[in-house]
Amino acid sequence: MEVNKHRLRDDLKKNGSFGKVSTSEGHGRTVLTGSKADKEARENFISIIESLNMRTKIDPVGNIAGIWVPDTTDPDADPVTIGSHLDSVPNGGIFDGPLGVFAGIETIRAIQESSYSPTCPIQVVSFTEEEGGRFDTGLLGSSFASGRRNKNEVLSLQDNTGMTLREALHDIGFNGTDDLSPSKWKSWIELHIEQGTVLETAGVSTGIVTAITGITNCKIEIVGEANHAGGTLMHERNDALVAASEFVSQVERIATEISDNESEFAAATVGELDVEPNARNVIPGRVSLSVDVRDINRSVMNNIITRMKKSLSRIENKRGVNTSIMVYRSINPAPMSEKSRKRLNGVAKKSGIEVLNLPSGGGHDTMNINDHTEVGMLFARSKGGVSHSPDEWTSWDDCKKATKILANAVVEMSCEG
Amino acid sequence: MEVNKHRLRDDLKKNGSFGKVSTSEGHGRTVLTGSKADKEARENFISIIESLNMRTKIDPVGNIAGIWVPDTTDPDADPVTIGSHLDSVPNGGIFDGPLGVFAGIETIRAIQESSYSPTCPIQVVSFTEEEGGRFDTGLLGSSFASGRRNKNEVLSLQDNTGMTLREALHDIGFNGTDDLSPSKWKSWIELHIEQGTVLETAGVSTGIVTAITGITNCKIEIVGEANHAGGTLMHERNDALVAASEFVSQVERIATEISDNESEFAAATVGELDVEPNARNVIPGRVSLSVDVRDINRSVMNNIITRMKKSLSRIENKRGVNTSIMVYRSINPAPMSEKSRKRLNGVAKKSGIEVLNLPSGGGHDTMNINDHTEVGMLFARSKGGVSHSPDEWTSWDDCKKATKILANAVVEMSCEG
Repeated sequence: MEVNKHRLRDDLKKNGSFGKVSTSEGHGRTVLTGSKADKEARENFISIIESLNMRTKIDPVGNIAGIWVPDTTDPDADPVTIGSHLDSVPNGGIFDGPLGVFAGIETIRAIQESSYSPTCPIQVVSFTEEEGGRFDTGLLGSSFASGRRNKNEVLSLQDNTGMTLREALHDIGFNGTDDLSPSKWKSWIELHIEQGTVLETAGVSTGIVTAITGITNCKIEIVGEANHAGGTLMHERNDALVAASEFVSQVERIATEISDNESEFAAATVGELDVEPNARNVIPGRVSLSVDVRDINRSVMNNIITRMKKSLSRIENKRGVNTSIMVYRSINPAPMSEKSRKRLNGVAKKSGIEVLNLPSGGGHDTMNINDHTEVGMLFARSKGGVSHSPDEWTSWDDCKKATKILANAVVEMSCEG
Repeated sequence: MEVNKHRLRDDLKKNGSFGKVSTSEGHGRTVLTGSKADKEARENFISIIESLNMRTKIDPVGNIAGIWVPDTTDPDADPVTIGSHLDSVPNGGIFDGPLGVFAGIETIRAIQESSYSPTCPIQVVSFTEEEGGRFDTGLLGSSFASGRRNKNEVLSLQDNTGMTLREALHDIGFNGTDDLSPSKWKSWIELHIEQGTVLETAGVSTGIVTAITGITNCKIEIVGEANHAGGTLMHERNDALVAASEFVSQVERIATEISDNESEFAAATVGELDVEPNARNVIPGRVSLSVDVRDINRSVMNNIITRMKKSLSRIENKRGVNTSIMVYRSINPAPMSEKSRKRLNGVAKKSGIEVLNLPSGGGHDTMNINDHTEVGMLFARSKGGVSHSPDEWTSWDDCKKATKILANAVVEMSCEG
């Protein structure tokens, strides 16, 4: 079965016009939960759902599904589900998220035009705030749908002005009552851009994800003594930033050693670092920083964290500072279903599209669905590995190839006995 | 000649009530240029000036002087001048600045009550915004009075809302027309708290400053490549924060080596460091940081900066980042006048007060006056070396001892032929 590159392109371009950011190069957009752009993107998605003779479902946290129940199927059968998300980071790109949603839409169109008769419903889902751009740290909608968090907990999340998700969804009219629990889905596939350069380096258009790396996020505080930069001799200082810098260097060394010797995809990143009082002429008294630790094996992640803690102890003793470490999020590595991986590889072979099997370093809503049903994930090659930027780009041909594998796999799953 | 500890204490406490910050411990105040607190502190100072039969002078940038011209003196003779500043950093202490101004006031009172007959006028000055808390990087008022910067340049300085110093001074009515150029002063003495622990460690109440260290401020940019913390393998990264951390460690190593082996008071401090985009899951793409370099010898400072530049080059080559360094402020070390140091040591000996001769690591308005007249500086012992904090504290006895040396030195200077 073929898919139509032009329709997919037009959908992605139109969706990219909501929250459009004008840039000299590339295609930027900012779609934060509850914003005007978010409302427009959601309403456009629903108008497409309705044009395809599908029914719209909205759950309490604003997750949206379009479900297609052809006359040939048992309406109570568990649906084959495809999806991703429509939100973006501030000044993000037009592919991260929407590609998976509109590849699902294109799949429905292609099947509707084909001679295939699905024996179960097919559903396309867009999860609320995958990016964590306003209310959360990421994977918001799927954390509720999968039952990891309850309704009240999620709806009470606040943005940095104190507005709740409940209020924001109410404002745009996307507080529904439908049930979108993945435990009632036959299977789940997400197509996403790679956000890395493994496919580009290998010269392959499409990836089949083997596992999504786990993520552990830690917050580290290093407290020294703020003092005047002029009056305090070098050997009298307890400089929190000098101590933090030693730690940042050690985090890199630990993760690089483990990546070189044990597990190539192991990574640890200090992404945030804030200095107090952060003044030209004051020795820093306090530094807070975050470390993001990832790998496809939990034991490797634990090893990185153990070594980070030892490093903090050494720095405490050496530099007369106090340190603390708090793990505030920990998501286990998520292997994709064996059955789904086999199916995707088989479909790719039949379609004559070369693929590469690889892990995903980035987190995706699929991680939350992993425990509930058969899950699979496809990657489309990402130019230069760039994402979360107007420079994010995946060629329309690459979008098409990955969507073709997706659509044919959905046919296999929805037309099987 | 004796000075009155209680009057000095009452003046400092009253001045500390303007912009008072309520804290559980200590005595905090926030006095930023042009604020209500600044206006109140200035008006209180002028009411004291007038109560002592002195004349008020205000110059175009809001520097204030009270000049006492006793009947015994030639009104055209150059005045012996004493002073410091009344502004504070946000949430600062009550001694940093005001001690020097009110020690000047107490000196006038003590001489007026004594049998001494000055042969030249005596003047007490408060400079605008020594701390750089709103419009500038510090030493604002003295940079204009000394002719380092012209009127228009200084009055056009803007705060972070875009308001100019000209507007702020106009609002509080402190844009005057008097001339407060130090080239027309016979001499200058500033009494200030130490903001370090050299006196405390030595168990000595009062310091006589030998030289004020020079200050060079540099801004450094390190540009790597922002990328997803998940999808980017450790060996593919150009992490600007890891590069910056290596630099911070090297700055400390360079300054510590030089302080240990060449010049004890040499120091280099990374006080500010900002990460972009500073997000949990993004490898930092850019870090900007500031380095504050100090010593009493320019050649030592230059050596530190040369070694910092070499270190940046090594990091560029090793880590695939781009770096730049810009020196945006450079103030030469300021030795105090030999004559003034001898006089202060002599007066201390006669008064039976033990003193220590030491350099000042902190910058002071005296640095700007250095080229124009005889300059001297006294330090009062500072508890724990703390300053720029409500915990800043100098005992009233230590305030008195330093003020007594100041007053008797002023008697020597103003009553000499």
